[in-house]
Amino acid sequence: MSLQRIALDVMGGDNAPDAILEGALMATSPIGTMKLPADRILLVGDEAVIDAFLRRQGAQGRFAIQHASEVIGMAESPSTALKAKKDSSIAVCVRAVQTSAAGAIVSMGNTGAVVGAATLGLGTLEGVKRPAIAVTLELTGSPVTILDMGANIAPKALHLVQYATMGSIYARDCLGVASPRVGLLNIGEEASKGTELLKEVHPMLAASRLNFVGNVESSGFFKGHSDVVVTDGFTGNVVLKLIEEFAGFILNLMLGELKAHSVQWAPEALGKIKKHIDYAEYGGALLLGVQGIVVKGHGRSDARAVANALVQAQRALDSDVNKNIVQGLAEA
Amino acid sequence: MSLQRIALDVMGGDNAPDAILEGALMATSPIGTMKLPADRILLVGDEAVIDAFLRRQGAQGRFAIQHASEVIGMAESPSTALKAKKDSSIAVCVRAVQTSAAGAIVSMGNTGAVVGAATLGLGTLEGVKRPAIAVTLELTGSPVTILDMGANIAPKALHLVQYATMGSIYARDCLGVASPRVGLLNIGEEASKGTELLKEVHPMLAASRLNFVGNVESSGFFKGHSDVVVTDGFTGNVVLKLIEEFAGFILNLMLGELKAHSVQWAPEALGKIKKHIDYAEYGGALLLGVQGIVVKGHGRSDARAVANALVQAQRALDSDVNKNIVQGLAEA
Repeated sequence: MSLQRIALDVMGGDNAPDAILEGALMATSPIGTMKLPADRILLVGDEAVIDAFLRRQGAQGRFAIQHASEVIGMAESPSTALKAKKDSSIAVCVRAVQTSAAGAIVSMGNTGAVVGAATLGLGTLEGVKRPAIAVTLELTGSPVTILDMGANIAPKALHLVQYATMGSIYARDCLGVASPRVGLLNIGEEASKGTELLKEVHPMLAASRLNFVGNVESSGFFKGHSDVVVTDGFTGNVVLKLIEEFAGFILNLMLGELKAHSVQWAPEALGKIKKHIDYAEYGGALLLGVQGIVVKGHGRSDARAVANALVQAQRALDSDVNKNIVQGLAEA
Repeated sequence: MSLQRIALDVMGGDNAPDAILEGALMATSPIGTMKLPADRILLVGDEAVIDAFLRRQGAQGRFAIQHASEVIGMAESPSTALKAKKDSSIAVCVRAVQTSAAGAIVSMGNTGAVVGAATLGLGTLEGVKRPAIAVTLELTGSPVTILDMGANIAPKALHLVQYATMGSIYARDCLGVASPRVGLLNIGEEASKGTELLKEVHPMLAASRLNFVGNVESSGFFKGHSDVVVTDGFTGNVVLKLIEEFAGFILNLMLGELKAHSVQWAPEALGKIKKHIDYAEYGGALLLGVQGIVVKGHGRSDARAVANALVQAQRALDSDVNKNIVQGLAEA
């Protein structure tokens, strides 16, 4: 069924197209562990490039292909590029969902262009005021989903309450958390803390049907007290970029010091640490609240991250998370 | 001269009073490297406790002491505690500056109580609209001073511009940065990015005499592109708590993995990494913009962090940073 299909933007990302196509092969490899059927993927991009790659890998004919003649670069202005390049791989992915040729989009491309094209092109789910970008981190051994990571930098109270509902349903349906604990990102745990916006949101969440655990501080990400953390898109974006860079910074510092002191490092240990701090383990950022599943992976994504993002999109499609969000908001 | 004296809150902090008093000894040790004269420290707290400690260490008579009969606990409500405990060590430190018995305060105690008592009790410097909490991190080998870390969670544009001036003068006078590069924390580098507040502040900073380098993202803390980063107190506080906890989290993860794989670790390497990510290396947070020098160290501070905070206060006193801030704001 084509609505269960994932339109994969082959041209977006720092390592496109090779890493993207390798990711599709990895996710659908018959000897791999991911077991995504190849007919669930629609490759979107330059047909000649895709064909040549698949032929080199002996995988011609394995995937459906939709040609897109243009590419939006990682550094292009999203609004300008979307207007000028009507046949970009991102725009064609969005059209695939609009025409029901696919139900989901996975892209490692220009964030602003993906979010902008998807928000405008797909429209919001019934009852959703504003979509939100959700990112799942596994810092402490259990996943924490934080939203909004930058879709809306000046949200109103109702938007934040809707984020809480959407994040909670996502954590339940796609991450298997039975009754997700929802925290509100703040600078202190007392209900009276924070900006006027947060003081307005706190009692609304407390009165909701959600499993609201109150305010959480940013230090709380490492304490495992909440499964979903709600914040405005400005703060969320600052947090996300800080976590991404800090993790890499400390790892490099550590590896450099170990080398300088000739310490023999255990590669499995590094792998385990990376797994904790690298959100690509969970796929990418999810644009929640639009009519369709949209996964935006990191521009730097390698094949494994692309494969994880495809599996994340599959899980979201199969769980009917969007239908449940519409229902959840109607009942809220 | 008593205005050059530092009132040290002996009773504040998780490890008080011992770690605080050990810090005073460390900073003034004749064989140490810090060389802070003992007559520059005024110990404020329970006189009997202080006397007993100094006697045990064979250091009786080395420091001036000011008795304070009460202590504000780390978890007490700041406003309630300040009203109820007029003779708390924090209140007595503030009175020491009010009466010119000291020019600076160093405390590891209750943050809200220290900031509240100092702001109300000392008043702002001429021309300063709102004080700001500045924290210096040395992530990349050169110090980055970030402010505000939580004094004012809903600042106006002019406040942020003043933070930039204060931070810039502090970096120049106390950290030896010749022409500090000032960045504005934002979610993108383009001038058009961010909240309405930031769009208002950007052209004001661009038109100022400061060495303004434009918007910086939170990932920029690790890139060494700016010496001073300006932000609102809400975002700053989220950033500070995240950095503090994340650093400790990754270090623990790393040490755990190394142990699990029986990797022999080089202690010097750990020390070097800690030095990069532990802001206690630079002392504590500085409350900039009040009439006096106020250093608020982390509650968890050990003796070394206390000693660093004392040296930081000494440097601020000796550099006349407050006089220069008043002058800088008048010329801005």
